[in-house]
Amino acid sequence: MKKPWAGRFTDKTKKTVDVFTSSVSSDKRLWKYDIEGSIAHARMLKKQKIISAPDARLILDGLNGIKQEIQKGKFKFRDDLEDVHMNIEYALIKKIGPAGGKLHTARSRNDQVALDLRLFLRDEITEILKLTASLQKNLVSIAEKNIDSVMPGYTHLQKAQPVLLSHHMLAYFEMLDRDLHRFKDCAGRINVLPLGSCALAGTTLPIDRKYVARLLNFPSVSENSMDSVSDRDFIIEFLSASSLLMTHLSRLAEEFVLWNSGEFGFIELPDSYATGSSIMPQKKNPDVMELIRGKSGAVISNLLGMFIVLKGLPLTYNRDLQEDKSPLFETVDTVKACLSILVEMMPLIRFKRQAMKKAAESGFLTATDIAEYLAGKGVPFREAHRVTGEIVKYCINKKKSLPDTDIKEFRRFSKEIDRDIYKYISVEASINRRDSYGGTARKRVSERINKLKKICDTK
Amino acid sequence: MKKPWAGRFTDKTKKTVDVFTSSVSSDKRLWKYDIEGSIAHARMLKKQKIISAPDARLILDGLNGIKQEIQKGKFKFRDDLEDVHMNIEYALIKKIGPAGGKLHTARSRNDQVALDLRLFLRDEITEILKLTASLQKNLVSIAEKNIDSVMPGYTHLQKAQPVLLSHHMLAYFEMLDRDLHRFKDCAGRINVLPLGSCALAGTTLPIDRKYVARLLNFPSVSENSMDSVSDRDFIIEFLSASSLLMTHLSRLAEEFVLWNSGEFGFIELPDSYATGSSIMPQKKNPDVMELIRGKSGAVISNLLGMFIVLKGLPLTYNRDLQEDKSPLFETVDTVKACLSILVEMMPLIRFKRQAMKKAAESGFLTATDIAEYLAGKGVPFREAHRVTGEIVKYCINKKKSLPDTDIKEFRRFSKEIDRDIYKYISVEASINRRDSYGGTARKRVSERINKLKKICDTK
Amino acid sequence: MKKPWAGRFTDKTKKTVDVFTSSVSSDKRLWKYDIEGSIAHARMLKKQKIISAPDARLILDGLNGIKQEIQKGKFKFRDDLEDVHMNIEYALIKKIGPAGGKLHTARSRNDQVALDLRLFLRDEITEILKLTASLQKNLVSIAEKNIDSVMPGYTHLQKAQPVLLSHHMLAYFEMLDRDLHRFKDCAGRINVLPLGSCALAGTTLPIDRKYVARLLNFPSVSENSMDSVSDRDFIIEFLSASSLLMTHLSRLAEEFVLWNSGEFGFIELPDSYATGSSIMPQKKNPDVMELIRGKSGAVISNLLGMFIVLKGLPLTYNRDLQEDKSPLFETVDTVKACLSILVEMMPLIRFKRQAMKKAAESGFLTATDIAEYLAGKGVPFREAHRVTGEIVKYCINKKKSLPDTDIKEFRRFSKEIDRDIYKYISVEASINRRDSYGGTARKRVSERINKLKKICDTK
Amino acid sequence: MKKPWAGRFTDKTKKTVDVFTSSVSSDKRLWKYDIEGSIAHARMLKKQKIISAPDARLILDGLNGIKQEIQKGKFKFRDDLEDVHMNIEYALIKKIGPAGGKLHTARSRNDQVALDLRLFLRDEITEILKLTASLQKNLVSIAEKNIDSVMPGYTHLQKAQPVLLSHHMLAYFEMLDRDLHRFKDCAGRINVLPLGSCALAGTTLPIDRKYVARLLNFPSVSENSMDSVSDRDFIIEFLSASSLLMTHLSRLAEEFVLWNSGEFGFIELPDSYATGSSIMPQKKNPDVMELIRGKSGAVISNLLGMFIVLKGLPLTYNRDLQEDKSPLFETVDTVKACLSILVEMMPLIRFKRQAMKKAAESGFLTATDIAEYLAGKGVPFREAHRVTGEIVKYCINKKKSLPDTDIKEFRRFSKEIDRDIYKYISVEASINRRDSYGGTARKRVSERINKLKKICDTK
Repeated sequence: MKKPWAGRFTDKTKKTVDVFTSSVSSDKRLWKYDIEGSIAHARMLKKQKIISAPDARLILDGLNGIKQEIQKGKFKFRDDLEDVHMNIEYALIKKIGPAGGKLHTARSRNDQVALDLRLFLRDEITEILKLTASLQKNLVSIAEKNIDSVMPGYTHLQKAQPVLLSHHMLAYFEMLDRDLHRFKDCAGRINVLPLGSCALAGTTLPIDRKYVARLLNFPSVSENSMDSVSDRDFIIEFLSASSLLMTHLSRLAEEFVLWNSGEFGFIELPDSYATGSSIMPQKKNPDVMELIRGKSGAVISNLLGMFIVLKGLPLTYNRDLQEDKSPLFETVDTVKACLSILVEMMPLIRFKRQAMKKAAESGFLTATDIAEYLAGKGVPFREAHRVTGEIVKYCINKKKSLPDTDIKEFRRFSKEIDRDIYKYISVEASINRRDSYGGTARKRVSERINKLKKICDTK
Repeated sequence: MKKPWAGRFTDKTKKTVDVFTSSVSSDKRLWKYDIEGSIAHARMLKKQKIISAPDARLILDGLNGIKQEIQKGKFKFRDDLEDVHMNIEYALIKKIGPAGGKLHTARSRNDQVALDLRLFLRDEITEILKLTASLQKNLVSIAEKNIDSVMPGYTHLQKAQPVLLSHHMLAYFEMLDRDLHRFKDCAGRINVLPLGSCALAGTTLPIDRKYVARLLNFPSVSENSMDSVSDRDFIIEFLSASSLLMTHLSRLAEEFVLWNSGEFGFIELPDSYATGSSIMPQKKNPDVMELIRGKSGAVISNLLGMFIVLKGLPLTYNRDLQEDKSPLFETVDTVKACLSILVEMMPLIRFKRQAMKKAAESGFLTATDIAEYLAGKGVPFREAHRVTGEIVKYCINKKKSLPDTDIKEFRRFSKEIDRDIYKYISVEASINRRDSYGGTARKRVSERINKLKKICDTK
Repeated sequence: MKKPWAGRFTDKTKKTVDVFTSSVSSDKRLWKYDIEGSIAHARMLKKQKIISAPDARLILDGLNGIKQEIQKGKFKFRDDLEDVHMNIEYALIKKIGPAGGKLHTARSRNDQVALDLRLFLRDEITEILKLTASLQKNLVSIAEKNIDSVMPGYTHLQKAQPVLLSHHMLAYFEMLDRDLHRFKDCAGRINVLPLGSCALAGTTLPIDRKYVARLLNFPSVSENSMDSVSDRDFIIEFLSASSLLMTHLSRLAEEFVLWNSGEFGFIELPDSYATGSSIMPQKKNPDVMELIRGKSGAVISNLLGMFIVLKGLPLTYNRDLQEDKSPLFETVDTVKACLSILVEMMPLIRFKRQAMKKAAESGFLTATDIAEYLAGKGVPFREAHRVTGEIVKYCINKKKSLPDTDIKEFRRFSKEIDRDIYKYISVEASINRRDSYGGTARKRVSERINKLKKICDTK
Repeated sequence: MKKPWAGRFTDKTKKTVDVFTSSVSSDKRLWKYDIEGSIAHARMLKKQKIISAPDARLILDGLNGIKQEIQKGKFKFRDDLEDVHMNIEYALIKKIGPAGGKLHTARSRNDQVALDLRLFLRDEITEILKLTASLQKNLVSIAEKNIDSVMPGYTHLQKAQPVLLSHHMLAYFEMLDRDLHRFKDCAGRINVLPLGSCALAGTTLPIDRKYVARLLNFPSVSENSMDSVSDRDFIIEFLSASSLLMTHLSRLAEEFVLWNSGEFGFIELPDSYATGSSIMPQKKNPDVMELIRGKSGAVISNLLGMFIVLKGLPLTYNRDLQEDKSPLFETVDTVKACLSILVEMMPLIRFKRQAMKKAAESGFLTATDIAEYLAGKGVPFREAHRVTGEIVKYCINKKKSLPDTDIKEFRRFSKEIDRDIYKYISVEASINRRDSYGGTARKRVSERINKLKKICDTK
């Protein structure tokens, strides 16, 4: 078949070039948005009398017919027709005759693909926002159910201070909340109509871009045609937001892998979400978590890939931009799959409260409480810190925990320590006294849970 | 000197470890923010009666004294004091005695460094916003001055359609405008007070975080102490926004490198912004532009580096996070340097209007106008495109331009072509008739310039 | 179906987990190597009497049967069977009964997948080496045919000194040659048998790894079982070598995009390797080159992705490693596709010798020759450079080329300049006198071509 | 001061441009190599009679004088002199007069900087090879000392099978060994003389490149002048090898961070290599390990940055290449610092043998041994695996370890199990029976240690 743009060409395109340059295998996924955009474009062409009403009718009917064929799996996409746009246009012309050739009036594939990508991503972000909100809901629910569970809080993977499991879980709520806002900001910048920019310079035909924007539910139209066809900022921004979300999920996954180890033993994964070993019969592996952690690599690298592609391109459209689709689609799929499986799995994870509590009780996690106790009595914090450090060293040598240490032993290190010290150095006391805003005290965390439950309900 | 945290340690830190782990050489740059945060913290400790008024006075005077010493270059930062925080605290204690040891009450380096970084970045983003707005102003000004200049618009680095130089320049305005919005969104998320999260779990002391927030001009305080000390999202988001800005500057630089080549010959760089060759006496190289293009690589890789650091870290603070400083500082410096030099240089670039115009007149850039002319007469666009393609092939063979082609020759390809075709195929006509919204018609571009001038004036 | 490792599990794996964790869609591509490895493994088990001869016979026949089914497209890979290994093993058991269950004796999927990947990559590198050598042959052939063509050599995209087109083309020969060596070094490190490392610690059964190595043509076996199952260095190294090769192809592509522009006009692409525009009838775009340039981004980002995956993993196998397949396969396919299309296309590119020569004649490219002429007369090079710079400035102002400049004018700048200067400042003279080793003189380049032709013939 | 290349320029370079384009602050580090290369160049110029013997004498004395000044810290590098090359040349001319201007005859900064970088990297790789070999020696020594220590081997961070600590440590030996080979391969490709390529095309002067190569100890000279000045492959390859080395160190660091946690408790870090907390007095943090893990991010991102810089550059030299220095230098410093601190620290880490052994004894790590026991009796492995899985499930429910399980209980699951099973399921037996080549049996590991000790001694 002769290419639709082959007027000035003498020789036919080589088959190998068709294959090398074709993007159909990947961009056919955009068919729904391509047709949606074409329908709006055709309606505008008719309203502006650029094409006749009967031609418009034929085109609209034809496009709807193609839509149904694709939905029913009856449409055959062809590599030698380059991309989803040409496949659909070619099918349209075959179906309705020369009128089909009028659809491409006053547009170019350059603005068409920019439109398709924006329509696609607008939908996908909506989906991602929903999944993220569901995961947040999970976290709040886990936090509420486990409000009694204490565990060690870590810095440097060393036990640091006792915290509530709920507090730990809600830290991820906050991360996801920033993700939500970033995706929303990104969605706002996606929501601009590029169609009508044509190849790069606009068109000489009397189009009405604002009408198309209304039809497709875009609050605004792009301001500069050259920018519109070469802009992939919205993809980069989406990939950035996705990379950060995946980084959060990867950190969560890392923690669950740790907690699931025999050494930590803080959680039991549901059998139905773990896998075994082909050789070691006792194994129950946290594969889902490992894969989430691993998949973050692909998403971050997709972001990088887009920067590399864009970094040195002159205006306006360059074919390099075709390489935006594979990283975009892979990222959308990965992010949704990871969120979905977590949404399913999280409520089924069993937290081993006893093990967590026990872990919080060894390792001098309330040493800071002694230092703050001393600071509260007017000892300069640096001095209080030093004294406590020496108490800890003493206890390590004596193989004692802090609550097991005698008051006389304490007072050898500082005369400021009185019997009331024991009220400060239990795990429960340490947690509940940490009631500064944002702190881990049960009271604080419960307040936050109540607030978040309301927020989640309105989402 | 004994480390302030060495209470429980028996052996001293090795010198090589001091050097390996020290971040002073890089984070001393944060001194201003560290002191600013400490002053607010001390004022709060006093208000809450956690420290006495006289101690607070000593601390505030001491900190102001240190501030002046640093400003005057009299302060010596020491590697073995680990970081900027310990250097200043150590100096404070040396200066005012034990009271200095009370400053660190109810805070940790974990929330302290998070605060310092947020204060620092808040200031730097303000600077970057200003520079970006200045560059936008430059672009509007160039667009206004050159409203008469035409040039070829390119796709695939092939001449595509004639455009106004102003239109081309304003495409970059739009990119920078999205950058501005991204930096502002990021600034909003930076503007949250982390101080008071302490090591990871909040504090048992009766602090008032909202008071500190007011003193430091933060509209809100962070909600979860564990998140607050392990969160570096704001740095990633800043690096993302910076990488995209640098990608835009790199694309602009790429174009100027092209335009500055003998082959394009569209611009003349000012002598004072070009450099020569150590061996080839005739050279005048666009080094500034090449370096901007090259430096985008470092900024993008800094973003990547941060993702790698964060990707698998469990909560909360891990020392890996120290590696955030070098990429952050390098990025801030690079972005500001590139914007500054462009702001200086852009107004001095001479656009060679004649050369641009000449380039627009060869290469069949108005072929689309013929196709649209035919489409306007009811020829299906696909057919119109084919016919025009054949006209172009004919002209290439005959070595003729479109305006040089005789009406009889045109009509051999389509009877729909009349004498009025010549009104459509001049460069000027092609541009001015492309008056769809966002298009390159002079009328459209002038409208936009007028609007942007008003916007720039209010920035 | 119950999972083969489900002995200790109470609940069945969720369908969504099957889908999320399955790697079949990607790793089924390894089937040939999986069977090849299994055959060698079974032969060894028999030789060592770990399984009986009749069982071994059944297994070998079964595996060969499965091989044929897959080749004929009759084999159905199932997602719920996790991966290519389990799919084949399951089919084997179904086909030959319990004896099939003996194949997995003394191995694990951990060493099995390491083997499959090494076998796969060994083959693919052989392919890539061939394609790279073909492209090198192309370059030598182009260099030989165009030995008379001169063109401007560029630095900073500014005309610098005249060079032979052949010399320019052979620069890419050198790059590809380094690529060849890197791939060969990598192939050497791939060529180590990991099988027999089992899950991570070796096996208690009396296997003979060296026998398997001989059967599979591996010169050595791995030394440490824990390393063997967690090592993906060979994939990283392959991705590095590929990224650098793609960087070279991207640079070549960038040059061809430039040379194909109207402004340079140095080449004419064959119609059959260029594509048109859906809207602009005159366009003939270098899409293949743009895509090669763009695709380098994906390959480089795949390398990055693997580093991110590996960077913080403890020993030994972690499921994150499954994420090695998609970047590896995509890279292999991209590299081969880009090399192949270039091998096809390069001989068809038409170099426009006149345009190149003309470009070399304007722009003072022989200014260095004047400076070296003066240096040859004893003028310090720095002084000679300064004098020539002033001659160039004079010529720019007078709009004269160097050969058009009168001897008297020359001598105004330096008395050392004599009439013989004109022998130095023609493009041909400049090239031919640059006969230092590795220089662009025709003599030198011809010598190199002759040498390379011989090398290519032996490849 | 007037720029040495300013002949054709009318206006002076702006101060801001000097600062923006200057690379002195970074590349002054190359001074030693710059002088070394200049000395060889000058000697060749004299030998070839391109400069006179007295001039050569002046130049050599001048260069040696400058060398001494720099060594003594008396040399002042200036930003406005652009780079290290111009700083030294300028100083030379100032010192010895016009003869100094003759040094730059027949070379350009383009080949000069390529030479300096190769000389620098050749030295640094030698250093890195030594440090890597020292770390390997450490590992062998640790393996030898701990040949009696057993520990759990992990997959998916789940206990898998018992292994020797020595075997685990030697896995890192293998990784480092591959690193060594990669650095050596890279060193071979660095060891090619680029000098004499001049700006891009070679020179018209009768230079002798092979003589320079001999003086500077290069086994070969580069074949193509255009390639030579635009080639940065050797930097990319070095950064790749470094990234992989750092990935290995990061994995080791990750393990030590885990092992140092209270939950694992496998090691005790020396006090002198750990740091404390500014707030929590009990903390002893593995900062060195965390920083090594974190620093791997910077090195990997430097590799990426170089790819971004190079990816779309046309030949030959472009100023973007200046951006190679900062990532290269940072990488060299980071790699050496991480290796050095590990070499120091590794021998001081105390392995807690009892804790490791205890960990290996719980968690059914010898389940595979039961399965292999059954397979040895002719039970198909898949069946043996299933049976063992059910034994493990039974033991989990009964809270029994495998050795605690009664023979009657075992035989409920399979009649093939006899009393001799207890010889197979102790940790020691499991390890020692895993004596396949590369396996963890003490015999195998000891053999390997003896072999490696010999290899280390010859390094």
